Amino acid sequence: MIAFDLPDFFPPDFSSPPLCDAPPAVFKQVESDGVAPEGFHATSIYPEYFKTAQGQWLLPRESRMDCVVVLEPDGTLSVREFRLLKQGDLVACGRRENGEDGIYVHTAAFEREQRVCEKFAFRTQVCRETSFSFDYDELYRLLEYERDNGFVLWVLGPAVAFDKDARQAMEGIIAEGYVHGLLAGNALATHDIEAAVFGTALGQDIYTKRHAELSHYKHIDTINTIRAVGSIEKAVEGGIVRDGIMRAIVDNGIPYVLAGSIRDDGPLPGVIADAYEAQDRMRDLTRKTTTVIAMATQLHSIATGNMIPSYKIMDDGSIRPVYFFTIDMSEFAVNKLANRGSLTARSILTNTQDFVVNLHRKLKRRGGERHRRI
Amino acid sequence: MIAFDLPDFFPPDFSSPPLCDAPPAVFKQVESDGVAPEGFHATSIYPEYFKTAQGQWLLPRESRMDCVVVLEPDGTLSVREFRLLKQGDLVACGRRENGEDGIYVHTAAFEREQRVCEKFAFRTQVCRETSFSFDYDELYRLLEYERDNGFVLWVLGPAVAFDKDARQAMEGIIAEGYVHGLLAGNALATHDIEAAVFGTALGQDIYTKRHAELSHYKHIDTINTIRAVGSIEKAVEGGIVRDGIMRAIVDNGIPYVLAGSIRDDGPLPGVIADAYEAQDRMRDLTRKTTTVIAMATQLHSIATGNMIPSYKIMDDGSIRPVYFFTIDMSEFAVNKLANRGSLTARSILTNTQDFVVNLHRKLKRRGGERHRRI
Amino acid sequence: MIAFDLPDFFPPDFSSPPLCDAPPAVFKQVESDGVAPEGFHATSIYPEYFKTAQGQWLLPRESRMDCVVVLEPDGTLSVREFRLLKQGDLVACGRRENGEDGIYVHTAAFEREQRVCEKFAFRTQVCRETSFSFDYDELYRLLEYERDNGFVLWVLGPAVAFDKDARQAMEGIIAEGYVHGLLAGNALATHDIEAAVFGTALGQDIYTKRHAELSHYKHIDTINTIRAVGSIEKAVEGGIVRDGIMRAIVDNGIPYVLAGSIRDDGPLPGVIADAYEAQDRMRDLTRKTTTVIAMATQLHSIATGNMIPSYKIMDDGSIRPVYFFTIDMSEFAVNKLANRGSLTARSILTNTQDFVVNLHRKLKRRGGERHRRI
Amino acid sequence: MIAFDLPDFFPPDFSSPPLCDAPPAVFKQVESDGVAPEGFHATSIYPEYFKTAQGQWLLPRESRMDCVVVLEPDGTLSVREFRLLKQGDLVACGRRENGEDGIYVHTAAFEREQRVCEKFAFRTQVCRETSFSFDYDELYRLLEYERDNGFVLWVLGPAVAFDKDARQAMEGIIAEGYVHGLLAGNALATHDIEAAVFGTALGQDIYTKRHAELSHYKHIDTINTIRAVGSIEKAVEGGIVRDGIMRAIVDNGIPYVLAGSIRDDGPLPGVIADAYEAQDRMRDLTRKTTTVIAMATQLHSIATGNMIPSYKIMDDGSIRPVYFFTIDMSEFAVNKLANRGSLTARSILTNTQDFVVNLHRKLKRRGGERHRRI
Repeated sequence: MIAFDLPDFFPPDFSSPPLCDAPPAVFKQVESDGVAPEGFHATSIYPEYFKTAQGQWLLPRESRMDCVVVLEPDGTLSVREFRLLKQGDLVACGRRENGEDGIYVHTAAFEREQRVCEKFAFRTQVCRETSFSFDYDELYRLLEYERDNGFVLWVLGPAVAFDKDARQAMEGIIAEGYVHGLLAGNALATHDIEAAVFGTALGQDIYTKRHAELSHYKHIDTINTIRAVGSIEKAVEGGIVRDGIMRAIVDNGIPYVLAGSIRDDGPLPGVIADAYEAQDRMRDLTRKTTTVIAMATQLHSIATGNMIPSYKIMDDGSIRPVYFFTIDMSEFAVNKLANRGSLTARSILTNTQDFVVNLHRKLKRRGGERHRRI
Repeated sequence: MIAFDLPDFFPPDFSSPPLCDAPPAVFKQVESDGVAPEGFHATSIYPEYFKTAQGQWLLPRESRMDCVVVLEPDGTLSVREFRLLKQGDLVACGRRENGEDGIYVHTAAFEREQRVCEKFAFRTQVCRETSFSFDYDELYRLLEYERDNGFVLWVLGPAVAFDKDARQAMEGIIAEGYVHGLLAGNALATHDIEAAVFGTALGQDIYTKRHAELSHYKHIDTINTIRAVGSIEKAVEGGIVRDGIMRAIVDNGIPYVLAGSIRDDGPLPGVIADAYEAQDRMRDLTRKTTTVIAMATQLHSIATGNMIPSYKIMDDGSIRPVYFFTIDMSEFAVNKLANRGSLTARSILTNTQDFVVNLHRKLKRRGGERHRRI
Repeated sequence: MIAFDLPDFFPPDFSSPPLCDAPPAVFKQVESDGVAPEGFHATSIYPEYFKTAQGQWLLPRESRMDCVVVLEPDGTLSVREFRLLKQGDLVACGRRENGEDGIYVHTAAFEREQRVCEKFAFRTQVCRETSFSFDYDELYRLLEYERDNGFVLWVLGPAVAFDKDARQAMEGIIAEGYVHGLLAGNALATHDIEAAVFGTALGQDIYTKRHAELSHYKHIDTINTIRAVGSIEKAVEGGIVRDGIMRAIVDNGIPYVLAGSIRDDGPLPGVIADAYEAQDRMRDLTRKTTTVIAMATQLHSIATGNMIPSYKIMDDGSIRPVYFFTIDMSEFAVNKLANRGSLTARSILTNTQDFVVNLHRKLKRRGGERHRRI
Repeated sequence: MIAFDLPDFFPPDFSSPPLCDAPPAVFKQVESDGVAPEGFHATSIYPEYFKTAQGQWLLPRESRMDCVVVLEPDGTLSVREFRLLKQGDLVACGRRENGEDGIYVHTAAFEREQRVCEKFAFRTQVCRETSFSFDYDELYRLLEYERDNGFVLWVLGPAVAFDKDARQAMEGIIAEGYVHGLLAGNALATHDIEAAVFGTALGQDIYTKRHAELSHYKHIDTINTIRAVGSIEKAVEGGIVRDGIMRAIVDNGIPYVLAGSIRDDGPLPGVIADAYEAQDRMRDLTRKTTTVIAMATQLHSIATGNMIPSYKIMDDGSIRPVYFFTIDMSEFAVNKLANRGSLTARSILTNTQDFVVNLHRKLKRRGGERHRRI
């Protein structure tokens, strides 16, 4: 089997027109907290370069979509949410993306992507009848590569905890090193822990589908139990949570963010009540991320999509693409996310359960093969 | 046309067995904040009666699902979220719902409901091919009644702001008195105000569908503008928001809650960052509500469904049903909500745009007829 | 209100290169019935011109997709299904569409379409959140125009007969002259006639949703009754079918095709058993059609889409576009049809019931206005 | 792993009231071809017993839904479609199902089903979040059992041919003996053979998704090629169809029915044009069937569901259940079929590709295990 091969990054040619003749970017002061100056430049998912007064083109280190670019006192550039702007911050202004405003949006940064573009005529729209074999094969290879070289962020809706086999597969994928961060909500953790405590999700057996007695109590008993213990971590240590996704996350020391929502019962301890604090904590993880796998959750998938760029500057200064896989049952949901204008975003339309069971089986087999080769 | 006729409430018969022989309910003390005592009783959407030590059956005034019942120092009962429990609170315990624990869950409280139950064999599952004429007719009559006698709470996803006719219809429905409260998120308000300012939603003309120049700036320019002004109210007063849903809400002094989420850009001023503070503010409105109309939003619809009972005690002590209409395009979404075990929950599977345009046209015509009759 | 304005047709410029230098098209003989010669040219939905040996460019009168072009003994061109080819037929060969094979596919025939193309950046993908006000307004105007000047072919799934208001609205639309042909299956006619006979569809009351006694007998009793009478026409005359879609169709002498399928019970008399005979009869109607409205049926919508071109040559020799509206609840379904590469194809994502009730109300109002103006 | 264990059949108790006192069933003569006498009894999916004038209770051998029961001259009972009734046929009349009309509908025939019924409270409605591990495990065991002891009928939509891995998996499932009959349409065979000839489906590579040159010619070139050869069988023999589903079907001598439809291009040789002749040929296979697996096709799934009972009388006179699995992406589609009132009908909501790849992998592993055990 072929190993995954990251596409090369091709920097813009700043020595030729129009870039060589571009003026420096204009930075205007923020007048009141949280409000950008008129004509602010908003970021995209692409690498964007800003020409300094000194004539240098700078690329902000950790970008994201729909934010503004702040020139820090130390001369570096930050990509910042509107709500985090402070009076006096210097914000890049200008909306032409071709260099005329000293700003260049580099939409075709990766060589393979360009080549692929010519060959694949018709990738924009994905439906249940699309062939996904290629995407699966690429995903298997990518995850093997990322296990050792990248940071794989999983974004999970509760569906993966509703089924015995899927929950076990997800547990295995975590234990085997393919998960470096988790974003989810109160529901995923609650249903997963309910399965650990009672064998049910919302009171229904995750294998036989039998409804437990007093089934509507199961999830609130679960929450109340964990609240009494004080944290998910303590519940894991105390042996209350004997298996499942959250146990594997805690056991393997994997960072996670559980963002609160208005749907929540409870919530579980550790769930972040403030949506924007949750965004900040999520972005702490997306800053490190090289691949996202988002399953069966529109809210968290779109939130994550908003805060992740299509590229990442690695510690050694090299620049690589960030991959984004969405798995969902509905054309409507995946097409909301798919249109990120980048071939590194892929959608697979299927049931999360099958996806994760399939994936785990394949990763195990490939892992086995790899070990045998050694 | 026939006026709407509220079904009668039939109280339980506490004088016959087993209720006449029921013991008083047991109330146990909360030992640590936010944690219910073991064996706590969890509420449902139904009227629930608790027998006091003095032998009285009490019905809590403002119930909701999946909460606990607290005996207040003044002898009344409150229905409280787990997170709001304080040490020393007295929480009702017992899980038998037939009176044996001094707790009676009254699932068949409304006479018409029972009668209807016999006649309608097969209401549980709704699909796109279900006949909805009856539901529409009932809804028209109900809304006329509620305009003068009830409290109609609307729960809106952003889709209603994406289309010119739908947005206008919604504006009309508000102006004509059929909206007494609004629950939504940052997106609805942002897209609606973007339409007021630029005529677009996410940069696309809400009538011609033409993409504006720099279309991806439209929603963040909108948000930045309102943030600069300081509040939606000031933007309405200042003439920045000339029309639309939010303008009608503000102009008519209708209370609203915009709950923040991790998807939000901005957010707009007035959006509540903390999910549980948002829940509290939402529940302030659901306490008054007699009819909910929830459209094109799973998150807010389910959140609202969680915090609204199937009945309401009116100021004069009478008890009436609370109606809950869900409008959505997907069987999956509506069936998540439909299973509330009450005939007062109805789902209509359709596009929000058509629903709201239809509804407004019909309400106007009936309004006209009514006036002519006078 | 503005009347509908057909876009002009712009013929190709055959006097300039490369068309002026094109060779005549090659026609090869069919060697065995039903099999095209190698290298056959397959038709598209566009106007296609074939250069004769005499140097003339001919446009076939009644085209459709995925067929071959036969040079008839009288020198005219026919567009023919493979299964209808006879030994000796002369079939156009050549797959270059730019004239080099004597064949020119004219993809940009209508002026307005071109103009519109520049303005509308992003029409390919439609979802439930797309704004449809513009499409509705255009449809209202179009149908008024077509009532007197065109041929409107309706393609109906059974859903329109499942609801009292929708069925009545459809009846009204037929009676008021907006329907010139109907394509459907056994199910639409059966459920519509069941509603006329029993007030039910599949045994469920089309207004109250109450299940009739022995509800599963209703549709087979209906079918058996009509089979006994001998035809739908006789059942209408005999007063058995007192109202509904099929009655309005028969009363107004509107041609219809009911195509049989493997799902059918019965079938009703008049249903065509042979799929390809049904295709031939359907194409008899599509040859005349200037606007298609296809609702809630993938099978019949796609079948009709396959056999209808994007243009029609009128009796006076003028050429006009053919409009194709699809109404369905699912992104998957409409996007299967939407990709016809022509702006005359539109999709509206909604429930058929609302669509048809809305449409009828609006057409009546506009009809009323028109009459008042006179 | 546990082998599959068929539930026992429990015959009705004809010796106790009310059955012991039941009158003989009434049979009335057909007066004109294709029309049942008034008051005809219509069949269900359950075993149904008819009491003869001689006092015997007879069970028709090969039943199906929505047909009538004919008393044959030899004293046996046939279940016949209305369209096949001939003048003079004796048709069972009576609509009470409890014996009062000499007719008994035996809805609880299988012991395990009853026991399961008590345990499983809530099986009626299936959604994408339902746990499917149990259904998969049961299906694996069932298919192993059926390979040697039953008749597995597959009903396939075209989606399974659109993806390389899925097509290969399906080929393997056929080759390994898990398919005893195939029902499909022109599209499945066309796209599968297109993949064999060109590596594409509708012109798109089934692995890379690359669009072939002249991609819209691929499927009609495929059809034309097979029409020229004369049959799918000859194309397989002649080496034109080198791999895939249809090749495996032909190579293994598996009976199949390709039913024509109004959507068809071509059609391929062997496709049955007449819908009702196709029904008859399909029923030839459903008469033998013990398990149905229906994937990604509403039309063929519902057609098959209509013509298959919930039980089968085996050659040795024993009676066993017939299993019916539906696999589809949409709640709407599976719930249309699921309501057959029998626990032997199961639905799995997922993408066909994943389902079939998963299934094949698991059957192979279990096959391997089984061999090792021997």
